[in-house]
Amino acid sequence: MADAPSDRTTIRRLPERAVYDRHAVDVILDEALICQVGFIEDGAPVVIPTIHARVDDVLYLHGSPASRMLRAMKHGLEVSINATIVDGLVVARAAFHNSLNYRSVVLFGTARVVDDPDEKRAAMKAVTEHVIPGRWADSRPMTDKEAKGTLIAAIAIDEVSAKVRAGGPKDDDGDYSYPTWAGTVPLGLRAGDPIPDPLLTVGVPVPDYLTGYDRTM
Amino acid sequence: MADAPSDRTTIRRLPERAVYDRHAVDVILDEALICQVGFIEDGAPVVIPTIHARVDDVLYLHGSPASRMLRAMKHGLEVSINATIVDGLVVARAAFHNSLNYRSVVLFGTARVVDDPDEKRAAMKAVTEHVIPGRWADSRPMTDKEAKGTLIAAIAIDEVSAKVRAGGPKDDDGDYSYPTWAGTVPLGLRAGDPIPDPLLTVGVPVPDYLTGYDRTM
Repeated sequence: MADAPSDRTTIRRLPERAVYDRHAVDVILDEALICQVGFIEDGAPVVIPTIHARVDDVLYLHGSPASRMLRAMKHGLEVSINATIVDGLVVARAAFHNSLNYRSVVLFGTARVVDDPDEKRAAMKAVTEHVIPGRWADSRPMTDKEAKGTLIAAIAIDEVSAKVRAGGPKDDDGDYSYPTWAGTVPLGLRAGDPIPDPLLTVGVPVPDYLTGYDRTM
Repeated sequence: MADAPSDRTTIRRLPERAVYDRHAVDVILDEALICQVGFIEDGAPVVIPTIHARVDDVLYLHGSPASRMLRAMKHGLEVSINATIVDGLVVARAAFHNSLNYRSVVLFGTARVVDDPDEKRAAMKAVTEHVIPGRWADSRPMTDKEAKGTLIAAIAIDEVSAKVRAGGPKDDDGDYSYPTWAGTVPLGLRAGDPIPDPLLTVGVPVPDYLTGYDRTM
């Protein structure tokens, strides 16, 4: 296991669940559909959800948090970002030991507004492809005006850690004979059947990347 | 639609998605399995995921954020909490109009540590039942020592708002003839088949609340 990149990314509670390996961090960031962005506004904490995308060592944020963050942002705004994937229920014999299986990343950094048109366009493509891989090429291309009207923030993926809980329940030695069921129940974000827009042009088939939509890495 | 309870809960971006109705807020908080808690530590924002439970007008937080928050908490700590449920992909013709359907709550408040033993035990029951309704009665009961060793924080559900996006894509008038598929793909947290703990006592059946596990309200 690699070392924590900073004091505040050192996992103190249940440190056996800590993961500082960058590849593990990237997999979680890539699979998580959304993330939560925290920042300080008028001296108070604010947490807002948003869509993100990772491009190498940079995390891009799209949309509403950017608009609110932008008001607080001059030459950079300190943020904390969490992306969490819930993998299952952990059903223990003891109420105290019930838990969830999950994979979670916490990132600290300074968010900057992306102004460079090329970087911005690449980030918007990455965000689209993060949500629906394959969709960018099938979409009506983004105009310069649309790109200008979109707020994109960027944060270096540097001061980051992950926490993972997997596997079955851990009960106390004396509890294994307690007469109740114990185990796990897998949970995951699953896609249903695509629902066509009523205004859809006749004859356009559902693309494969939607019928087989699956975020699992 | 009710009014926003405060200036900072007023939805500024896409205000047509704002929901200030408390019942709508409660449904989202109750369905969301986890939430993200933001607070300020050493002058910087921190966002951590946790399990929560709502009891009437109070949101209880369990576990790791409490332990980290507790270090920053003397007589109360300002927090911002987000709970977001992703309901689907919104697949528009224009890359610019791709979106997600979601229901999201943002809550502001002052977190207090729950010290009263009765309130604490009720909160721990609520957290267990939030994750798995029906589980508390089937579990080995919590001991006083376990209750003492658990950190529970409480926040009044008062300064709160919700934001909801539902329905199909909204494309620009000129784009409806663009030759690509458009519509929505439903997404939801789905449960797989329960996996028994290998150490499970023979003959204990899987309870109904796990085989039929479904968070949808």
